[in-house]
Amino acid sequence: MNHLQLIPLANLPLIQPGDDLAGLIFASILTGGIKLTNNDIIVIAQKIVSKAEGRLVRLAEVTPSAQAQELVRLTGKPAALIEVILWDTAEIIRVRQNVLIVQHKLGFISANAGVDHSNVSREADVLLRLPQDPDASAHTIRQRLGELSGVRPPVLIIDTHGRAWRRGAVGVTIGLSGLAPVQDLRGTPDLFGQPLQVTEVGLTDQLAAAASLVMGQAAEGCPVVIVRGLSFRPDEQARAADVLRPRETDLFR
Amino acid sequence: MNHLQLIPLANLPLIQPGDDLAGLIFASILTGGIKLTNNDIIVIAQKIVSKAEGRLVRLAEVTPSAQAQELVRLTGKPAALIEVILWDTAEIIRVRQNVLIVQHKLGFISANAGVDHSNVSREADVLLRLPQDPDASAHTIRQRLGELSGVRPPVLIIDTHGRAWRRGAVGVTIGLSGLAPVQDLRGTPDLFGQPLQVTEVGLTDQLAAAASLVMGQAAEGCPVVIVRGLSFRPDEQARAADVLRPRETDLFR
Repeated sequence: MNHLQLIPLANLPLIQPGDDLAGLIFASILTGGIKLTNNDIIVIAQKIVSKAEGRLVRLAEVTPSAQAQELVRLTGKPAALIEVILWDTAEIIRVRQNVLIVQHKLGFISANAGVDHSNVSREADVLLRLPQDPDASAHTIRQRLGELSGVRPPVLIIDTHGRAWRRGAVGVTIGLSGLAPVQDLRGTPDLFGQPLQVTEVGLTDQLAAAASLVMGQAAEGCPVVIVRGLSFRPDEQARAADVLRPRETDLFR
Repeated sequence: MNHLQLIPLANLPLIQPGDDLAGLIFASILTGGIKLTNNDIIVIAQKIVSKAEGRLVRLAEVTPSAQAQELVRLTGKPAALIEVILWDTAEIIRVRQNVLIVQHKLGFISANAGVDHSNVSREADVLLRLPQDPDASAHTIRQRLGELSGVRPPVLIIDTHGRAWRRGAVGVTIGLSGLAPVQDLRGTPDLFGQPLQVTEVGLTDQLAAAASLVMGQAAEGCPVVIVRGLSFRPDEQARAADVLRPRETDLFR
């Protein structure tokens, strides 16, 4: 059985809007003496993808709507922040003081529609939205890395989400190329040859959690991790939204 | 920055009730030529802890209560299985056809109170309950490994849980010794020196997810993984239940 290795990419520069992210990642792989293969998986923090794609919003340029103003009263959050969250919101799920949990237009349920305020810029009044189409972002980075390196390992774009019932944010996949988010082991025999009952495994979310451990959450600043040593079946049709529970079977909205 | 390594313990025998689990793990560490240190983290699948502790229940010996009978109608699950789930249930959270989500008496919310039917025994009618006190189990294993090896790395006992909103089970910590489940980064400055707002990280659940990737979910049968290369602060007071959201702040019951 192989060891699983999570290799942080060192020396990636601070990413700026318009940067060729795949090019910078490839340069960092070369500098690190890492020999990329098709058996690796590249995990990238959403934040640097959003930055490269210029998904920054200056709070001063935001005009809060009436709905945003109403949510200020209920949450205590700044009006302009709420307005930007609403831009990306399909449905409001829970509202309390200091809590705004929504379904993002991409389908994910999380706090603040993934709109981020930390590690964005030296300017205190800048927000960062998620990439517009994280699967497309993952696909583009993977294609470009393929051209540069000659290999096309899967690419995951991850964020951290809070959870129902349990404290502590954990890494989850919000965009991907080349790897299915849920691996279905139903029907695979167990150790004793009996068929397993329910064993859908959250494969890419577990990869995201593992990579998130290495990335750290704060000042460490390591937004790309290479996972090495996991067996997987590539899947060119997979989308990050495949992980979402269909609304009619979701018991916790 | 260090690589994070997840090292599966090979050659662990099938665990039987009464087995000295720490002794078997230590033997497997020696056989594998692994030099354990206090900077490692030992992650153990709940299933082998429960088996060693004899938490098996023969379905034929279970007499379903009236409440279990009623839940058969609502879930379609076998009455004896439901009865065993109810033994460990503090509160029923959601009931649907084929779905029984409860709060375990240990505090965790998950399907079937963690009662397991697969990989338990060659006998088809045997269930496995969670360890009675998984923190105590982790502590005991850690103490015994300490006596054998001379070092006392933290020990996590993990299970896999389904999630609200997202498909696919992921590893989570249900028992631990020596490591706090939630690491609070509030107040740590971000990359640009601004204070972070909310950054509670689900440290041991991310470790559980990472280890779960390596353990696999089915026939692979690798129930112990050593995590190497993560910086952490030991915490002798930590309990697995520290990860649970207080009821009054839990919006998804």
